[in-house]
Amino acid sequence: MQRIALLTSGGDSPGMNACIRAVARKAIYHGLEVMGIKRGFNGFIEADMYPMNLGSVAGIIHRGGTILHTARSDHFMTPEGRAKANENVKRFGIQGLVVIGGDGSFRGASVFHQEYGLPVIGVPGTIDNDIAGTDQSIGFDTAVNTAVEAISKIRDTATSHERTFIIEVMGRHFGFIALAAGLAGGAESILVPECPFNYDEICERLMRGYKRGKLHSIIVVAEGVAGGIEVGRIIKERTGFDTKVTILGHLQRGGMPSAADLILASRMGARAVELLMAGSKKDMVGVKAGEIIAVDIDEALSQTKAIDTEMCNLAVSLSI
Amino acid sequence: MQRIALLTSGGDSPGMNACIRAVARKAIYHGLEVMGIKRGFNGFIEADMYPMNLGSVAGIIHRGGTILHTARSDHFMTPEGRAKANENVKRFGIQGLVVIGGDGSFRGASVFHQEYGLPVIGVPGTIDNDIAGTDQSIGFDTAVNTAVEAISKIRDTATSHERTFIIEVMGRHFGFIALAAGLAGGAESILVPECPFNYDEICERLMRGYKRGKLHSIIVVAEGVAGGIEVGRIIKERTGFDTKVTILGHLQRGGMPSAADLILASRMGARAVELLMAGSKKDMVGVKAGEIIAVDIDEALSQTKAIDTEMCNLAVSLSI
Amino acid sequence: MQRIALLTSGGDSPGMNACIRAVARKAIYHGLEVMGIKRGFNGFIEADMYPMNLGSVAGIIHRGGTILHTARSDHFMTPEGRAKANENVKRFGIQGLVVIGGDGSFRGASVFHQEYGLPVIGVPGTIDNDIAGTDQSIGFDTAVNTAVEAISKIRDTATSHERTFIIEVMGRHFGFIALAAGLAGGAESILVPECPFNYDEICERLMRGYKRGKLHSIIVVAEGVAGGIEVGRIIKERTGFDTKVTILGHLQRGGMPSAADLILASRMGARAVELLMAGSKKDMVGVKAGEIIAVDIDEALSQTKAIDTEMCNLAVSLSI
Amino acid sequence: MQRIALLTSGGDSPGMNACIRAVARKAIYHGLEVMGIKRGFNGFIEADMYPMNLGSVAGIIHRGGTILHTARSDHFMTPEGRAKANENVKRFGIQGLVVIGGDGSFRGASVFHQEYGLPVIGVPGTIDNDIAGTDQSIGFDTAVNTAVEAISKIRDTATSHERTFIIEVMGRHFGFIALAAGLAGGAESILVPECPFNYDEICERLMRGYKRGKLHSIIVVAEGVAGGIEVGRIIKERTGFDTKVTILGHLQRGGMPSAADLILASRMGARAVELLMAGSKKDMVGVKAGEIIAVDIDEALSQTKAIDTEMCNLAVSLSI
Repeated sequence: MQRIALLTSGGDSPGMNACIRAVARKAIYHGLEVMGIKRGFNGFIEADMYPMNLGSVAGIIHRGGTILHTARSDHFMTPEGRAKANENVKRFGIQGLVVIGGDGSFRGASVFHQEYGLPVIGVPGTIDNDIAGTDQSIGFDTAVNTAVEAISKIRDTATSHERTFIIEVMGRHFGFIALAAGLAGGAESILVPECPFNYDEICERLMRGYKRGKLHSIIVVAEGVAGGIEVGRIIKERTGFDTKVTILGHLQRGGMPSAADLILASRMGARAVELLMAGSKKDMVGVKAGEIIAVDIDEALSQTKAIDTEMCNLAVSLSI
Repeated sequence: MQRIALLTSGGDSPGMNACIRAVARKAIYHGLEVMGIKRGFNGFIEADMYPMNLGSVAGIIHRGGTILHTARSDHFMTPEGRAKANENVKRFGIQGLVVIGGDGSFRGASVFHQEYGLPVIGVPGTIDNDIAGTDQSIGFDTAVNTAVEAISKIRDTATSHERTFIIEVMGRHFGFIALAAGLAGGAESILVPECPFNYDEICERLMRGYKRGKLHSIIVVAEGVAGGIEVGRIIKERTGFDTKVTILGHLQRGGMPSAADLILASRMGARAVELLMAGSKKDMVGVKAGEIIAVDIDEALSQTKAIDTEMCNLAVSLSI
Repeated sequence: MQRIALLTSGGDSPGMNACIRAVARKAIYHGLEVMGIKRGFNGFIEADMYPMNLGSVAGIIHRGGTILHTARSDHFMTPEGRAKANENVKRFGIQGLVVIGGDGSFRGASVFHQEYGLPVIGVPGTIDNDIAGTDQSIGFDTAVNTAVEAISKIRDTATSHERTFIIEVMGRHFGFIALAAGLAGGAESILVPECPFNYDEICERLMRGYKRGKLHSIIVVAEGVAGGIEVGRIIKERTGFDTKVTILGHLQRGGMPSAADLILASRMGARAVELLMAGSKKDMVGVKAGEIIAVDIDEALSQTKAIDTEMCNLAVSLSI
Repeated sequence: MQRIALLTSGGDSPGMNACIRAVARKAIYHGLEVMGIKRGFNGFIEADMYPMNLGSVAGIIHRGGTILHTARSDHFMTPEGRAKANENVKRFGIQGLVVIGGDGSFRGASVFHQEYGLPVIGVPGTIDNDIAGTDQSIGFDTAVNTAVEAISKIRDTATSHERTFIIEVMGRHFGFIALAAGLAGGAESILVPECPFNYDEICERLMRGYKRGKLHSIIVVAEGVAGGIEVGRIIKERTGFDTKVTILGHLQRGGMPSAADLILASRMGARAVELLMAGSKKDMVGVKAGEIIAVDIDEALSQTKAIDTEMCNLAVSLSI
């Protein structure tokens, strides 16, 4: 193996740059050449790539976003798009591809491997932490910390008003951010897409707390459940409480990566290179029980990650 | 003068605790007794107050919120409410009152002074910075920093998507936070209640930037102009751009106060005590050109604070 | 079981308050009474304790330090001290004790259990992460994040000077903080007590980088290796490079706990109560492979935690 | 005027990039060309410069450090160095120069103007805030916030130990950072180069607090007074108290600029361009009473900035 390529794909997540740095440095350390592909699979198709050196990744470790940019690529979903990408594989002599992104990106990589045989390694980079086969994905820890800081600031101001604060966090299909941030933030209620809930129960809980002297409550809601503004409107209607809404939005994708994400990104990026050098064909890097592992990319894609019900119950029992 | 009282009123702002500490310590330093009144004018009416000592204000300087709690008081707006408060003035031997809050609170304090003669000192504590007679109010600098940090995080993720990010900040009637945060954040457009705007112009500006290769834009909007979600909907309709909305909400009231707010709060609180000791009857503490000053509270209330048009123009010329 | 007691001991760590909250709430949730003991084992001996209720732990989850205060207790190291503590066990009807702290504190708890039979549960709370039997202790993640933020700020200013920056972090006998922070911070060299090093090698590495055009370097050093100022002096002598030293000191013990520490503290605190209710006699709560576990406290104390050599090697290969 | 040049010089400070952005955008807005000179006056001598466009300054506003790099230049202190620089002035058709830096840099710019007539504008960028003729310099507010955050974290951990914490901040000849950070941080003692102090008084104050029940104290010391480690050693010797030292070092130069610094940098940078366009010959931009002003650069250099004794006294009276 002499030359590999690297791209980031899908929604960006904090720590992607640390992972890019690790892939590039580890590869260079072992004498490999690295092509940095820009704008995800679009750059793969359009030959928008450049050779990376040590300087290409200097000073980027702590920056949010991705220096390679990212995009979702409809074109790569088509056979024509992938055929054009394969021309670039041949043209540039690429012998292995590292894809940092989410499951949509891995699906594309897997199809490309099936069709053209290029070894591909997926590295899970998404704040949603919704990828099976790994305990944690790059960016999740940072996103949760961002949400907890927001909750903490709102708590500062909450202590003297009879108010209900609603904080909408990311999570269209999964409640991982909401659950972790709600538990760490000491939220009174946490609404996630995986668990049924009804407004009666939530409002009753609010009223019960209020009667016991609790003057404020914080409700964390994953965007996939309902818009924060909608939740606020309904609760206000039913309880008469003043509700205030914060929507964190893309705030959660930015910021300096947390130490845990920086370490995870570094370890995963390095492992991706080792896997290619060892002859892997289509693996995803993951972390299980603290150890960096490799799983077949299709196997990982075939599973669904389940929310930890122990943590759900804990959150309820601690916010009495 | 032997005994003064102190309350926080209206919306809380970061730095109020540092101001409480300064009032209490400065008073104790000069041998005065200090009664801390809880829940704003409500506690004044209901005799919810306690004698403060050095320990009462230990370890609070960096905390958001207010240890005295705050509330808006309808009861104090009535003659009956104020009569009850005056009974407490006599009962507890209060000879001066420091009110940390916004213009609504100062209006109440001024009426109370007129009716019962108690010397009152207003200290401007509001993130909105909408109080005439002072260049800055306690909490504004912190709120702007919070908004800028949010913009900075969103910028991290913005660089590789063809997207328009809308950030709604506080400011029902004034655009001070929006203007300062937008300028400091390098926003492409800033919408404030004081300045007319039309969507055509904004959309045209977005399209122009897009044609020049600018793939993302950040628009800061004060809540008084329109809801962020509404702005996002309209821009999407007219330009076809994907718009993403963040609503900071009460996030902006919390967090550790900035150094500038801590210093301002300390200086203003100390001055409030000095004014009472020197025989002031109804003054507001302010800061002008870096100096702590006193202005007649009614004079301050009679004016309206104007937005700095130089800064508006600067923001436009720098975000070309 | 009707009544348990709770104390924090040894050096404080961020997340201790979240753990106190979890112990208290979980116990109250199950109908138990909780006595909060102040100043570690000193308060245990001197009967400095109070019954906790839901309000005792309201609003503390995000605060650094410990509301129960902490201390190292020489008195509890003596049979007399422990005998006095046991009188309080009988006097207050304490049936189980939760000790949040490090290995010295667990040793004291274990001896007390041997002598008087009181069930004791240790919860690992120390930024040093030096406790065997658990992958992570409460406060470590926060301390590493604090150190990484410091490195990141220093990196900002480092890019244009021919300078070597030395950052001294905590770790008298262990290099866990230094290794994690150095790896996450992209440090050029990491000096830990567990691994031999010589200045020749470090200086050579610096010179090599310099010749390749690297104008600045960051060296992270655990305090147990040598003082940062000493390291700076020696490197300057041998290379002629300007060296600048930052000593983080107790900075690393403070600050809002990270999300990971808040969740770990909540889970561990809740488990400590469950263990007492289930009849545990002398266990330490730990986390292994993401799962909360219980290990015999003496077994945990008999082992030594080893540094992860894979991470050491990774740090070296990524900072070429 | 058709083409101007821009450099950063001396120690870097947070906000320099925002100022570079403002100079470049304001100039381009008015149709001027801008040359970015690298590594301060060294790049001026060695023709290390490049034409800047809107893209050159995109995405830099929130970053610490300076994209133009900075250095102290011995060569520019010589007539030969300046003669070479003047050749580049002619070669590149430079008609005005903006220098962002401290008084040493302004002195160089002033001499160059005297010798060769090139219009020069100084913009005060230094965390030390030691430049007369302006109330504030770019970076000071950020550095003070960094120091206050450090104090705040140390305060978290300080509350339960009989300890004295010493925090060494920057300031070789001036105590501006120490005074502001100490006041905002609620420090018990603040040692600055401008004010005499003796250890007896400080130790007495510590003992007095201790007898009153104060278990911990925070002392902020400017590096110009004495090394933090030295101060800790002496206090320990005299009082027997355990002293813990933190040296912030270059931490204070880094980090995302505060909102106030971002706004100040933007306003000052824009004004620098306006001044050149209006025919200024050798001015320094400053801020007085909130207004951006221009002062003759030599006049500013001839004065010495005095510390605010009102703030010194306030700090003492509030930390009783």
